[in-house]
Amino acid sequence: MGKYLIGIDLGGTNIKGAVIDTKGNVIFKSQVPTLAEKGPETVAQRISKVITDLEEQSAKSGHGISCVGIGVPGQIEQGTVLFSPNLRWSNFPLVERLRQHTQLPVYIENDATVAALGEQWCGAGCGSTNMAMITIGTGIGGGLIINGSLYRGTNGSAGEIGHTIILPDGPKCTCGQQGCLETLSSATAMIRMANEAILNGSKTILSQKKEIEAKDIVEAAKAGDEVSLEIINKAAFYLGLGLANLINIVNPDTIVIGGGVSQAGEILFTPLRETAKGYSLAYPAGAVKIVPAELGNGAGSIGAAKMADEQLRHVLSDSNRR
Amino acid sequence: MGKYLIGIDLGGTNIKGAVIDTKGNVIFKSQVPTLAEKGPETVAQRISKVITDLEEQSAKSGHGISCVGIGVPGQIEQGTVLFSPNLRWSNFPLVERLRQHTQLPVYIENDATVAALGEQWCGAGCGSTNMAMITIGTGIGGGLIINGSLYRGTNGSAGEIGHTIILPDGPKCTCGQQGCLETLSSATAMIRMANEAILNGSKTILSQKKEIEAKDIVEAAKAGDEVSLEIINKAAFYLGLGLANLINIVNPDTIVIGGGVSQAGEILFTPLRETAKGYSLAYPAGAVKIVPAELGNGAGSIGAAKMADEQLRHVLSDSNRR
Repeated sequence: MGKYLIGIDLGGTNIKGAVIDTKGNVIFKSQVPTLAEKGPETVAQRISKVITDLEEQSAKSGHGISCVGIGVPGQIEQGTVLFSPNLRWSNFPLVERLRQHTQLPVYIENDATVAALGEQWCGAGCGSTNMAMITIGTGIGGGLIINGSLYRGTNGSAGEIGHTIILPDGPKCTCGQQGCLETLSSATAMIRMANEAILNGSKTILSQKKEIEAKDIVEAAKAGDEVSLEIINKAAFYLGLGLANLINIVNPDTIVIGGGVSQAGEILFTPLRETAKGYSLAYPAGAVKIVPAELGNGAGSIGAAKMADEQLRHVLSDSNRR
Repeated sequence: MGKYLIGIDLGGTNIKGAVIDTKGNVIFKSQVPTLAEKGPETVAQRISKVITDLEEQSAKSGHGISCVGIGVPGQIEQGTVLFSPNLRWSNFPLVERLRQHTQLPVYIENDATVAALGEQWCGAGCGSTNMAMITIGTGIGGGLIINGSLYRGTNGSAGEIGHTIILPDGPKCTCGQQGCLETLSSATAMIRMANEAILNGSKTILSQKKEIEAKDIVEAAKAGDEVSLEIINKAAFYLGLGLANLINIVNPDTIVIGGGVSQAGEILFTPLRETAKGYSLAYPAGAVKIVPAELGNGAGSIGAAKMADEQLRHVLSDSNRR
């Protein structure tokens, strides 16, 4: 029997793990709350528990596990989480800690980066050579595939399109700057625009909601609510400017848009494509397709598994060469 | 005796060729006017003449030539110049034409891209793994080195930072957009700002000039001219915003600034570094150095030679594998 992979999506709220076969199919799942507030040591133990659980499930079906990949919301260097605002970690040696609990080789990488790898492996970017994935949620994350492989950049920070500056005089961002794409096109930004519109007395069905979520704005827009439509058009326009800059710099063949907002469909994608292609140069604009993600929440664990598989092969081919 | 390379920088005004040794040293030079107005067939013949001339000079010193690389100001695909506004060419099969005149393998690539390769090979980006080169002249060009190699992107358009949009409501660009970096920080933009200042009655020593050049603005700023200083600060600020976006997306270890304006020294580089690092995220900002180009006008021919050398090795290793 062949060996399977374990992929884990470590989020601020949940640890989502899955056993993945060599073609990217999810075979088993396991999920526990992260309990980030109890600190990194507790979280590391909870990750170990998910790994053990998945390993046991897989063993029962006769499949061993070759390695474990974990997508972490933060800055990663050589197995250490340097900085994670979501988890409130800094300089936590996650791989070293997990080694105390599992014999399996464990690899970690930024979550947006592994999600990009997941979509390129068996999602909306399948077969892509140069791909960007943009995940729109509370913030805006990004990951790049260059020449067919995951591209980390010089110190693992590549693909941070959410903090490219679109409007130098725009709204304040959590990163300390102003007018980052994240302040203009994230779910948070759309909710802020909706609340501002209501405060300004605009007529919208959103004012019936106690607490507005991004999906409410999408639904209202689809139902013809003018204020919601305008919010989506604005968010799409600024996102389109960000993508235009990415297209001119990276010249990708595919841009995959993920996160809840990406499920808005053509109401978002039509103005988005128009701006992204209209504001970039004709040659790179002609080479790129802009598509919604296909793996949904699974992209994180599937991509983490693929990342670990590639790292392990790399280590093995290096040691064979010696 | 080892073999040398020929590198050619095909410009709108001159065809600058050089024989380059395997370490990037310029051994011989040859230059003729391009005469672009006489059309592509004539220019191809003039390039052939430069190649023959350099081949003969090199032969006299006992060195053969292995291949020829040409940097072309335009969009390149598989040996054809798809589009060159500078030369007014479209769909000209340059490599095929040159094959009628020379037995040597000839490779062509975008001029900004090969200049980046030149600086990475033996200039300011020597030893860099992930590098961007930005050339500031009449326009703003760019080229990328990713994972140690020249990165073309999906259809040869990567690195076009000059047309990333910095101010959505900014000045009109030749590309048809508004507020591209090129309209804010190129030599042309600086000259426009100087003329505007004079028209508005600002007191500046530039008003003594009949026709202002970018170098006049740099010199005046160094001499303490307030208007010129402000122009350079503005150009540096917008260029810094463009670099900040590039830093967040590509996470390079080095950004090399070339072109005449880059010789302004600290008067340009101090505000430039401040903005580029201040407006990008701390991790990628901490990984990058921003430095002036070192090869000057030579970057084009040196980089073109290196590009050809790499292409030839690639072809040879492919045919060996078969």
